[in-house]
Amino acid sequence: MAAVEMVELWRGGLKESVHRGHAVVWDRGGMVAAWGDPAAVIFPRSSCKMIQALPLVESGAADAAGLGPRQLALACASHNGAALHVGAVGDWLHGLGLAEPDLRCGAHMPQDPAEHRRLLCSDQPPCQLHNNCSGKHAGFLTWNRHHRGDADYHLPEHPLQRAIAAATAEVCDETPAGFGIDGCSAPNFAVSIAGLARAMAGFAAASEGARGQAQRRLVQAMLAHPELVAGEGRACTELMRAMGGRVAVKTGAEAVFVAIAPERGLGIALKIEDGATRGSEAAITALLVHYGLLDPAHPVVGKYLRRPLRNWRGVDVAERRLAAAFPGRG
Amino acid sequence: MAAVEMVELWRGGLKESVHRGHAVVWDRGGMVAAWGDPAAVIFPRSSCKMIQALPLVESGAADAAGLGPRQLALACASHNGAALHVGAVGDWLHGLGLAEPDLRCGAHMPQDPAEHRRLLCSDQPPCQLHNNCSGKHAGFLTWNRHHRGDADYHLPEHPLQRAIAAATAEVCDETPAGFGIDGCSAPNFAVSIAGLARAMAGFAAASEGARGQAQRRLVQAMLAHPELVAGEGRACTELMRAMGGRVAVKTGAEAVFVAIAPERGLGIALKIEDGATRGSEAAITALLVHYGLLDPAHPVVGKYLRRPLRNWRGVDVAERRLAAAFPGRG
Repeated sequence: MAAVEMVELWRGGLKESVHRGHAVVWDRGGMVAAWGDPAAVIFPRSSCKMIQALPLVESGAADAAGLGPRQLALACASHNGAALHVGAVGDWLHGLGLAEPDLRCGAHMPQDPAEHRRLLCSDQPPCQLHNNCSGKHAGFLTWNRHHRGDADYHLPEHPLQRAIAAATAEVCDETPAGFGIDGCSAPNFAVSIAGLARAMAGFAAASEGARGQAQRRLVQAMLAHPELVAGEGRACTELMRAMGGRVAVKTGAEAVFVAIAPERGLGIALKIEDGATRGSEAAITALLVHYGLLDPAHPVVGKYLRRPLRNWRGVDVAERRLAAAFPGRG
Repeated sequence: MAAVEMVELWRGGLKESVHRGHAVVWDRGGMVAAWGDPAAVIFPRSSCKMIQALPLVESGAADAAGLGPRQLALACASHNGAALHVGAVGDWLHGLGLAEPDLRCGAHMPQDPAEHRRLLCSDQPPCQLHNNCSGKHAGFLTWNRHHRGDADYHLPEHPLQRAIAAATAEVCDETPAGFGIDGCSAPNFAVSIAGLARAMAGFAAASEGARGQAQRRLVQAMLAHPELVAGEGRACTELMRAMGGRVAVKTGAEAVFVAIAPERGLGIALKIEDGATRGSEAAITALLVHYGLLDPAHPVVGKYLRRPLRNWRGVDVAERRLAAAFPGRG
């Protein structure tokens, strides 16, 4: 099945651009609804950081290092590299007796405007703590120190990445179709959009065993610290705040978005086929509203669903709209 | 007809994202080839700046103001807002006895890294000269001073914009489906992708009359000053340089790209339906190579067609590829 039209951009009464995608909703009973092809294989990218954090918690490494909800939220984060995030990850590494050079994520300029400006205007390069994945990698280092692993914890053959591959296969209930290397150098396992939705439903309806306990802790950490999971002005942070800490959401590069609704045992996964974040942000907002998880009157709904495009003289000239059939039918 | 797959992003041996679009190639004999729907209505956005500059030249306003190829190239430009562009447009306005506040394009931060950094780090806001459309608007002001028009030359009912609407209908040989307001506040007329390709073929095979003369002058100006049409590191500038001043190309927002090949009397127009510039840059590069206008061994071909995606530790992790059927069949 082909990807279906989900989000459009309109200008002057005409459709200017369109984003197509795949989406699946899953609950305790199985697949609730699908748009496009539930079997479409995707790279979850950063949307699966809570899966990548499972070995950290399940192995006892998180407890041995005394990690709290702040660190667990950062392990699941694609953060802005604001002073808040950089400081917290730096402290975490320091507590482990490690430091920035131990990270393997590489450095990039932070998205946070204040920190970006500070670095640019003082001629300072960003460090690896600024990498949006530095919290995930601090989690990797925590696991690795606990298991006395080789320094290159990011390589696909490293026991940590093998443990993540196994956890991915288990929670998605499928063998990954392969893996790619992510922007932060870690392997990212390709799964179906249905498998990813099933995994998110598993986090939402966590069982009583060690896995369920780990899943609950990670989701609760994200819900308790939305500001650490992304940052000010970002969709993950704003949507989680708008839902009052009841639903966790997470974006991934190339337009992936997932949601975990524990009260309903519901998981959502979607991918816009062209990789546009403006499409995935609008589509997840639409599904959150459609399933009664997000108040349609909340200001963030207008921001991500319609987002009027204002031109350089302050005139609204274009706006997002949902495609006619999305999310009307399952 | 639906948009067809044109450009893909691959990671770890799997297709991660895909861009679909419409493209038409036109020459003196009519339509040469089409992918997707040639009747698809699009907003050309900045790809039609040479059409928007026709009244400026045809009316005699350009000659009366003594405009040379540099100003005509800027009139067709979506520039980077580098010091080069800002200075040239400022001088042009000064020569007309006008100044920055006479522009109606609004201000935005320039794309040029040095000028962006200078403004940000000295706490200076950008001015309207930095707007990527400031050259087009200086052309509008030149027409307007010549015709003693109202100051608000950007409004759809202004005689200048009516003249542009008429020129658009003539060179595209169709009545525009409507108009939207562009980022720079000027109206942008919606036409079919075939109409836009036909218009570009008209610029390529310009006749002997006043229109043909104006078309030739504008294309020659773009070819003579690729650095003014966009800027260092930008696709328009680099592709025109790579083709040795023989083919003019121009991008438009939301993933439009056109080409004008005078030696062949050939015009190309394409639109990626999702609005992604990475898709339109790859697709126009593919068509330029396919039609023998661009040497496939030139380094820019690799840059825009394959563009290996390097992660933050310098490892190539993903790359663009052309979809199987593009541009193999017409």
